[in-house]
Amino acid sequence: MRTGIATVCLSGTLKEKMQACAIAGFDGIEIFEQDLVTSPLTPEDVRKMAADLGLTLDLYQPFRDFDSVSEDLLVANLRRAEAKFKLMARLGMDTVLVCSNVATASIDSDDLRVEQLGQLAALAGDHGVKVAYEALAWGKYVNDYEHAHKLVEAVDHPNLGTCLDSFHILSRNWDTAPIEAFNPEKIFFVQVADAPKLSMDVLSWSRHYRVFPGEGQFELAKFMGHVVRAGYSGPVSLEIFNDVFRQSDVERTAVDAMRSLIWLEEQSAKWLDAASTGATGADGTQAPGRRRYPMELATLPQVAEPAGYNFAEVRAADTQGLETVLGQLGFEFNGRHRTKDVQLWSLGHARVIINEAAPADGHDPSADASPAIAAPAIGALGFDVASPVIAAARAQQLKAPAVPRKSQANEEVFQGFAAPDSTEIFLCQGTSDGTAAWTSEFGEGLENPAAGPAAVIDHVNLAQPWQHFDEAVLFYTSALALEPQPFAEVPSPTGLVRSQVMATGDRAVRLVLNLAPLNQQRKTYQEHIAFAVDDLVATARDCRARGLEFLQIPANYYEDLDARFGLAPDFLATLQALNLLYDRDADGEFLHFYTATVGSVFFEMVERRGAYDGYGAPNAPVRHAVQYDHLQHR
Amino acid sequence: MRTGIATVCLSGTLKEKMQACAIAGFDGIEIFEQDLVTSPLTPEDVRKMAADLGLTLDLYQPFRDFDSVSEDLLVANLRRAEAKFKLMARLGMDTVLVCSNVATASIDSDDLRVEQLGQLAALAGDHGVKVAYEALAWGKYVNDYEHAHKLVEAVDHPNLGTCLDSFHILSRNWDTAPIEAFNPEKIFFVQVADAPKLSMDVLSWSRHYRVFPGEGQFELAKFMGHVVRAGYSGPVSLEIFNDVFRQSDVERTAVDAMRSLIWLEEQSAKWLDAASTGATGADGTQAPGRRRYPMELATLPQVAEPAGYNFAEVRAADTQGLETVLGQLGFEFNGRHRTKDVQLWSLGHARVIINEAAPADGHDPSADASPAIAAPAIGALGFDVASPVIAAARAQQLKAPAVPRKSQANEEVFQGFAAPDSTEIFLCQGTSDGTAAWTSEFGEGLENPAAGPAAVIDHVNLAQPWQHFDEAVLFYTSALALEPQPFAEVPSPTGLVRSQVMATGDRAVRLVLNLAPLNQQRKTYQEHIAFAVDDLVATARDCRARGLEFLQIPANYYEDLDARFGLAPDFLATLQALNLLYDRDADGEFLHFYTATVGSVFFEMVERRGAYDGYGAPNAPVRHAVQYDHLQHR
Repeated sequence: MRTGIATVCLSGTLKEKMQACAIAGFDGIEIFEQDLVTSPLTPEDVRKMAADLGLTLDLYQPFRDFDSVSEDLLVANLRRAEAKFKLMARLGMDTVLVCSNVATASIDSDDLRVEQLGQLAALAGDHGVKVAYEALAWGKYVNDYEHAHKLVEAVDHPNLGTCLDSFHILSRNWDTAPIEAFNPEKIFFVQVADAPKLSMDVLSWSRHYRVFPGEGQFELAKFMGHVVRAGYSGPVSLEIFNDVFRQSDVERTAVDAMRSLIWLEEQSAKWLDAASTGATGADGTQAPGRRRYPMELATLPQVAEPAGYNFAEVRAADTQGLETVLGQLGFEFNGRHRTKDVQLWSLGHARVIINEAAPADGHDPSADASPAIAAPAIGALGFDVASPVIAAARAQQLKAPAVPRKSQANEEVFQGFAAPDSTEIFLCQGTSDGTAAWTSEFGEGLENPAAGPAAVIDHVNLAQPWQHFDEAVLFYTSALALEPQPFAEVPSPTGLVRSQVMATGDRAVRLVLNLAPLNQQRKTYQEHIAFAVDDLVATARDCRARGLEFLQIPANYYEDLDARFGLAPDFLATLQALNLLYDRDADGEFLHFYTATVGSVFFEMVERRGAYDGYGAPNAPVRHAVQYDHLQHR
Repeated sequence: MRTGIATVCLSGTLKEKMQACAIAGFDGIEIFEQDLVTSPLTPEDVRKMAADLGLTLDLYQPFRDFDSVSEDLLVANLRRAEAKFKLMARLGMDTVLVCSNVATASIDSDDLRVEQLGQLAALAGDHGVKVAYEALAWGKYVNDYEHAHKLVEAVDHPNLGTCLDSFHILSRNWDTAPIEAFNPEKIFFVQVADAPKLSMDVLSWSRHYRVFPGEGQFELAKFMGHVVRAGYSGPVSLEIFNDVFRQSDVERTAVDAMRSLIWLEEQSAKWLDAASTGATGADGTQAPGRRRYPMELATLPQVAEPAGYNFAEVRAADTQGLETVLGQLGFEFNGRHRTKDVQLWSLGHARVIINEAAPADGHDPSADASPAIAAPAIGALGFDVASPVIAAARAQQLKAPAVPRKSQANEEVFQGFAAPDSTEIFLCQGTSDGTAAWTSEFGEGLENPAAGPAAVIDHVNLAQPWQHFDEAVLFYTSALALEPQPFAEVPSPTGLVRSQVMATGDRAVRLVLNLAPLNQQRKTYQEHIAFAVDDLVATARDCRARGLEFLQIPANYYEDLDARFGLAPDFLATLQALNLLYDRDADGEFLHFYTATVGSVFFEMVERRGAYDGYGAPNAPVRHAVQYDHLQHR
């Protein structure tokens, strides 16, 4: 699959954009007119730079408001088009995007459009230019891709084809199956964009909220499947208008973009395979569907979803506070590593590593290079996977930045990469009994999960920098095979917190990505690790006996709980006495408590009853408010 | 008018919110349930604190999903309601908001609703509670305020009335005139919220995009006029769900909120006056409409829109660069002030003051306390008004923070206040010939506008911190009588820039508020002052002869200009040779150029031909791109 991206997706100057696209590995780019008009580079400079960078210049865009106009306006539009065709010759470009008219269209006649597009095609032919005509979702008379294609067919000129843009098609809920019947010669270009399903006017939706494939909710693999089946083999190019991407680091965004196409390519191949099940080749054997189409779809190393958390690592220059809290939570100290300055603590199968290093190079949710936080912060997560090598290879192909982990001889080598928020993700060899071989590298006493309570890491909650929230969703989807769940918004005293759960189907891994309010990104920012136990009340009593500092829940909360659920008085009194929070839904019940915060980390203990699948979202505002109050007074 | 605000409008803890409301001068508050539930304050604490702060506790809210339910759910809901009624007794509150059911409603029967609301009213009566029933715009069966009122009338119980919320009414475009016919005894509460007119689902619109009155596009004065005419005299309370306000400084936001009600009160009185024109009192004389209603509407000192800019002030520790640019632009140096470290420069009637002080205490568009910028920045603007004293009194009543300007004997005393972005606004005595008396305080030579070219300040472009953009719109509307124009969005290499023009009807004052992309707030942030001249080409030639450094416009721009407008070759060549930008629309033409940036300030020279009323918006991306490129390389 030939990959492309429109320069409008990225921040910076045209030069910076082109360089970032080359570094990210794109085959070609679309040049957005404004990026050229505002650039000090001449068209010849751009042509040479693209050649030097190994980028093809696939599409000049957009040419607006051409068709459905009066005769005098047509003359002006043809003049304008000719100027652009000449410019394209200097750029060495041969394809231009012409959008259906939204502004100056005054005549609703397909005959007239055929006539006018025919004139444009003839002019384009004179200049060796191919015109890709696209139906904008909000086009005045032409807003349906089949309508645009019908016009192209009617004109029947070799220099006129259509451009298919997934946003314009899927935002209108047009059926994509008819694409398969299109003459591939007439599909001049394909643009892909994803988007969250929003209920708003389609123009605003398109201009501000598009995201890269895998970061939204459109059925893009299916769209691409139809395109591939039609026989199209040209570039598949991203055209994403997004307020955040426009502000973000250009190289980071270009990599995020490239990852989305690599992922889409794989998903499209899978869709084709699934759709062609039962189809047989000429020799009578079953043939993978994608093999029979002109577009080649590359594959990635395949991974299943992770089987669980292997460990969570907290970094701290001063480890005293962490050690105290873990001890009070009932964790056992399993010793120090043979060669590294790290400690291992465990409770059942839940393992926490304390890395005795300041988290300066670790997780940094801030946009700017802020001063290193010496206080404890979550630095790394380990996941149990079937094959760490395959999973690492997949992540690498998805352009996840590898992180080195120094190892001595006879020590397990972790395959690792950095998540968008710079949390380090390590891929560990899962075992059927939930143990981890690497724990033998720790000194005094191996972990002995059978001896302690049956605890596991239930979920980890990471704060995301605002520029990298969407990127993180695609990252965990593509590199770690987690599935995004419907997101929630939680009120906090400093703003709404957007909360996106990524999870495996069996919920063995639950990872919560929180988009903190902008004002909170660098100050009151907190993350946590939650452990699941069988009997939270007993656990809480034990923790209290060991002197744990619980997050203090206001009495008002318990009154409200009683008003909402009508709990048995004894049970309610127990909850209140132990600072436990409670939630209930149709699937089951949820009990949980939080510890006080150490640095920017706190811990949660949870008990899931029945099939409860949530996180106590109704209680999150209480947690935020109490933590905020503590921060104000510490 | 009794003023109120719901605690959900503000950031912080309940205690912080209450304190901020008291400081801002609110009469009372609505307590949003979550703010109490998450608070360590007992209900008795809250009651005492409110009394100490002089705040009434007007409404407990919200009670959700009561009506239209099955019998067993009704029992649970009544139980839940009774718990809240008991809580309200402890708080000393007597009114609760009950919203029409959105979630658990299963039976669409007005008879059933009358029956169930009747039971609720009876229970409320037992506890001395008044239930204000409100139709949510997205209520499942009840989403129209007239429907809610009809149910209230049918129940006919002294403890059941309705709550009118402007958002729920105006977002659905319901006619507000029928409110006048309501029995005022049955209107238990009135909530006001403004909003920009967005085309999106009403729930998302309501939860994220409400703004304070005067910051959106709803006809609130008319809504309030009908409420007043109905005979309602209770609290008028703000209920604003806004993602930005929730993150902003609580005291600042509370003042912004209070300003919006003061302004709304005045606008409502004006609407009533206008609506009652022609009505005569009992004695045969014309009576102002508002006098005849139970709700008293206070008035403010009245001001007309400013007649023009009196001056613009730039602050700089090092003034050399500014002096050079102003000189090259043709400005005359009119000397130093007798007693202050400021210089006066003028070109025609355009006056620029250079304040030889670092702009540390001046305009700071950043959210955080960032290091003081020693480089030049716009610090103050002077406006010609009919009566500076009256205008200052009005601004003060609108809670604009006064700024002191030290003066010696025999010097003109400027009335001044700080705008939301901390630019200082000074109110000057306008003169019919465009001169300013205070210029006599400057040493060497009075200004002599007749001698120079006929220049004026055309517009000033200020960057706004993201937390205070909406606040700024209301501020300039209410305190300075500027009118918000439709906003534009301009692409820049670091993101979209939202651009909001505030102007007088005659366009003598044009002030452009730019919401810079988040990443640009503290770094590449630039503002400018634009001067209008009669002959831009001649001015540009003179400036070039004086060695002015123009912002260099790329050649590609002129090619595109030619493609778009088909300009005469000579004219196009002149534009290009002088780095002039060009725009044209149905009203006229616009020529302009920019200087290089000094510190965070640059200047623009414009010529308006015909009735052109814009700012060359199609050229703004070029300006942003070239400035960005310079910043990258300096």
